[in-house]
Amino acid sequence: MKKSPLQKARAAYQPKLPVVLTGPVKVVEGEATTSVADQEAIKNLFPETYGLPEIKFEKRTTPVAGKPVNVGVILSGGQAPGGHNVICGLFDGIKKLHRDSRLYGFLMGPGGFVDHNYMELTSAIIDEYRNTGGFDIIGSGRTKLEKVEQFDKGLEILRELNIAALVIIGGDDSNTNAAVLAEYYKSINAGVQVIGCPKTIDGDLKNDVIETSFGFDTATKVYSEVIGNIQRDCNSAKKYYHFIKLMGRSASHIALECALQTQPNICIISEEVEAKNMTLQDIVNSIADVVARRAADGKNFGTVLVPEGLIEFIPAVKKLIAELNDMLAANGDEFAAVAPAEQRAWVIAHLSKENAAVYESLPAGVARQLTLDRDPHGNVQVSLIETEKLLSEMVKKRLEEMRAEGKYNGKFSPLHHFFGYEGRCADPSNFDADYCYALGFNASCLINAGVTGYMSSVRNLNKPSVQWQAGGIPITMMMNMERRNGELKPVIQKALVRLDGVPFRKFEEKRDEWALNTCYVYPGPIQYFGPAEVCDQPTLTLKYEHQGK
Amino acid sequence: MKKSPLQKARAAYQPKLPVVLTGPVKVVEGEATTSVADQEAIKNLFPETYGLPEIKFEKRTTPVAGKPVNVGVILSGGQAPGGHNVICGLFDGIKKLHRDSRLYGFLMGPGGFVDHNYMELTSAIIDEYRNTGGFDIIGSGRTKLEKVEQFDKGLEILRELNIAALVIIGGDDSNTNAAVLAEYYKSINAGVQVIGCPKTIDGDLKNDVIETSFGFDTATKVYSEVIGNIQRDCNSAKKYYHFIKLMGRSASHIALECALQTQPNICIISEEVEAKNMTLQDIVNSIADVVARRAADGKNFGTVLVPEGLIEFIPAVKKLIAELNDMLAANGDEFAAVAPAEQRAWVIAHLSKENAAVYESLPAGVARQLTLDRDPHGNVQVSLIETEKLLSEMVKKRLEEMRAEGKYNGKFSPLHHFFGYEGRCADPSNFDADYCYALGFNASCLINAGVTGYMSSVRNLNKPSVQWQAGGIPITMMMNMERRNGELKPVIQKALVRLDGVPFRKFEEKRDEWALNTCYVYPGPIQYFGPAEVCDQPTLTLKYEHQGK
Repeated sequence: MKKSPLQKARAAYQPKLPVVLTGPVKVVEGEATTSVADQEAIKNLFPETYGLPEIKFEKRTTPVAGKPVNVGVILSGGQAPGGHNVICGLFDGIKKLHRDSRLYGFLMGPGGFVDHNYMELTSAIIDEYRNTGGFDIIGSGRTKLEKVEQFDKGLEILRELNIAALVIIGGDDSNTNAAVLAEYYKSINAGVQVIGCPKTIDGDLKNDVIETSFGFDTATKVYSEVIGNIQRDCNSAKKYYHFIKLMGRSASHIALECALQTQPNICIISEEVEAKNMTLQDIVNSIADVVARRAADGKNFGTVLVPEGLIEFIPAVKKLIAELNDMLAANGDEFAAVAPAEQRAWVIAHLSKENAAVYESLPAGVARQLTLDRDPHGNVQVSLIETEKLLSEMVKKRLEEMRAEGKYNGKFSPLHHFFGYEGRCADPSNFDADYCYALGFNASCLINAGVTGYMSSVRNLNKPSVQWQAGGIPITMMMNMERRNGELKPVIQKALVRLDGVPFRKFEEKRDEWALNTCYVYPGPIQYFGPAEVCDQPTLTLKYEHQGK
Repeated sequence: MKKSPLQKARAAYQPKLPVVLTGPVKVVEGEATTSVADQEAIKNLFPETYGLPEIKFEKRTTPVAGKPVNVGVILSGGQAPGGHNVICGLFDGIKKLHRDSRLYGFLMGPGGFVDHNYMELTSAIIDEYRNTGGFDIIGSGRTKLEKVEQFDKGLEILRELNIAALVIIGGDDSNTNAAVLAEYYKSINAGVQVIGCPKTIDGDLKNDVIETSFGFDTATKVYSEVIGNIQRDCNSAKKYYHFIKLMGRSASHIALECALQTQPNICIISEEVEAKNMTLQDIVNSIADVVARRAADGKNFGTVLVPEGLIEFIPAVKKLIAELNDMLAANGDEFAAVAPAEQRAWVIAHLSKENAAVYESLPAGVARQLTLDRDPHGNVQVSLIETEKLLSEMVKKRLEEMRAEGKYNGKFSPLHHFFGYEGRCADPSNFDADYCYALGFNASCLINAGVTGYMSSVRNLNKPSVQWQAGGIPITMMMNMERRNGELKPVIQKALVRLDGVPFRKFEEKRDEWALNTCYVYPGPIQYFGPAEVCDQPTLTLKYEHQGK
């Protein structure tokens, strides 16, 4: 593996562990916990692991003799910067417990666990991946660990390798599955602990006890770097509107953080669109209004951030998609026989009046995507819709209407971008390098403490890393019941952007000024070696959320 | 203007000037020069400025008393990282000559010169822009300075402001125009010097005397950062083919440099496509072949770099476009009346047999783009063609044929990216910060030397910046005659990728290995504060070109 000069230099970086984890720890148990909602239902589903106490580690003055422990680790779901450091921290942690401890990585996600594909992670391998981005050390995958047969199959390999604890690094769904697995193994006295680690660039796995998921910091910094560069270009050429879609699934955390970092002219927050019951046309009109006001001021350029999940949050489009799914499921054969030129009229004739009107209001290309690009279950593939192009096309149309009414007199040249894959595997920022290493190292302490069904928790993250607190949170504590594919399921509550939270309020306070003036900020690339105020800042989201506490 | 922490820290960076420019200089003249081709024609067109000697600056032991000088500066064409530092170096240079010197910036490109829109650049303004990306200090524009009326109009404002020298920061065309302007002003004894500076991220303004244009270093590092990140994602998820189109106009320098930096599975070089007379289908087949061979090895993922200018270099497509332009110009009205569903057949019927066959081989979407998306002159807008999608669509089709023949058994999921605006206004790398500052400072020395029609030249760039050489090159020396819009014009010869050059040969040597194995390199983000081997490396193109000398 040929390494870049930066990789070579970064390999030497020693993540700064919280002081409490630098020596032997003692376990301090808090009160028994309850789930965030649906307590009775969750308690019934998790009789073995419900109501466990929060755990906090404190320094212990006397050393303890550790025993060797074999641990398995799984990377689950989409990549996030710092995953390798979780594994490195876990490795160093169990080696510190006892040098004969072993770490096994299951390959390509939970599938490797079920299918018994694994490798031992030796120190030679680990050292190749310190402070690097990506999940390529063992690969990741999206197989869902949900069925007892999978759990039993996995247990075979755990027994074969004498593995006493399994660490699952994943997002909300993967940690939900970790809790179910922990409960199951405890119920059958399998003798295997299960520990989760909060991973996702989307930032939607957080709550009162988990301050942020890892990867969010680095990914938003990479996106902010390129958004800033585009904004500087925009402000130099003064002739384009850049519509920039950002990954992040349903929640708009990434778009909001990037907006706070770069101060674009417009940033749409899906959660606000839903709360205000806005239509697609409302959004388009609000963008066109800003474009027209800037044009009146001689500014025919600007930037618009669009969260990936937007389309699902527009109540009218959500209803349309739901009816389309049902209608096409029921009439799929008939639809398939309709000639392409007739399809639009056919769809309109088969929809309720309200949804037909929404469908008619969509540009032809998007309307076609809604009926043609369907997944194997027959559902619309919302993530494939190029929302950034949809919006710019509709804004253009709206501006022509405004021009005819004498309300707009400018030029509108849109350009489009979508950022996602650029940030998921970036080299972790100092924050993520430290946070991930601490999460992994801390997981080894939870393993040593003998607990199961816990998520590794490192808090106080707005402070320098040496001051961070370490401990564990019972996963059941974060759960509620939600409908998934028609069934009520226990799941970790997904964190959406809170409209009463400080990050959104800060954005709301400033956005009118950012819209009309040009207040772009240019964050530049992530720095690893410079002054602390450049290299060691957490996200503004984290900072503002701490202010709100 | 709110500044990011990195901007604040970078403002303090003092670019490292070549030693020769740190004190008074003496002018050493070389031999009289000749143009690279068409000597007689160029000489006739530039009687005043042809045949001037190369100039080299050397240290002078005795100080000289400088006089105040008023200088004008123009940013011309597309943005490139470091433009602000050229202006900062120029400002510091003329202030060092005499503290009463003044610098005027013409706004939004050459148009500001012709229309007398300008601002004085004071030290308070200059200090806000040191080591920053973008051209926003005075803006840029694409107005071409070609006509005597423009030159005369500009001269009015130069006289009004008592400006003795004009510095034009631009690419090959802008520097060509600078030479024409210098010749004209000299021929009328206007008493105004004109100096050019070599700017373009595309890397196509270079020759035996200009080692590289500024901005190429930073832009290719930004693209390599995100390509590296995508490759790490690609190698972690192991399920996508990423087709990545890169800016760079006609030449493939950017794609080649990024390939050398990141070692993708495939990189197409337009110049090679043309030299080998490859068809679009040849390119598609070669990609499909790599995809199939990787699939046979269990690898259903990869990366493909595509230079922006590719489509124009495919001889068959070039011919098709030429005929389409002529045919639609002659039959535009008739075509406009053809119903959309009939257009394809109509176009095929109106083309020669050879071009009709090429047209038929194109995917429907691209074929439609070729006939519909035309510029105001009626020409096909090649840059709007989404070559990355065109290629992946055709590769997919080809793979299905191969599957039917039993030659392919894999999965092919393409994703698409286009990078350009992300890099044009990035904060300059240390290399570009130093190089640009030196180019600007050096321009002040050329002004003080009283010359006109020269390009600021800083060489020996593979060495540390203190060892760089400084001087001036007569712009006419880089010229030849080329056909532009049907007329023979004197222009600076554009540098395409040389297939016999060391950069391409290094790529050629390795590409088979990179195609089948996974040899990705992850350069990471530009660093400003770390060890020299991370922060101060020039491009591999520059390094290899020096090896070839």
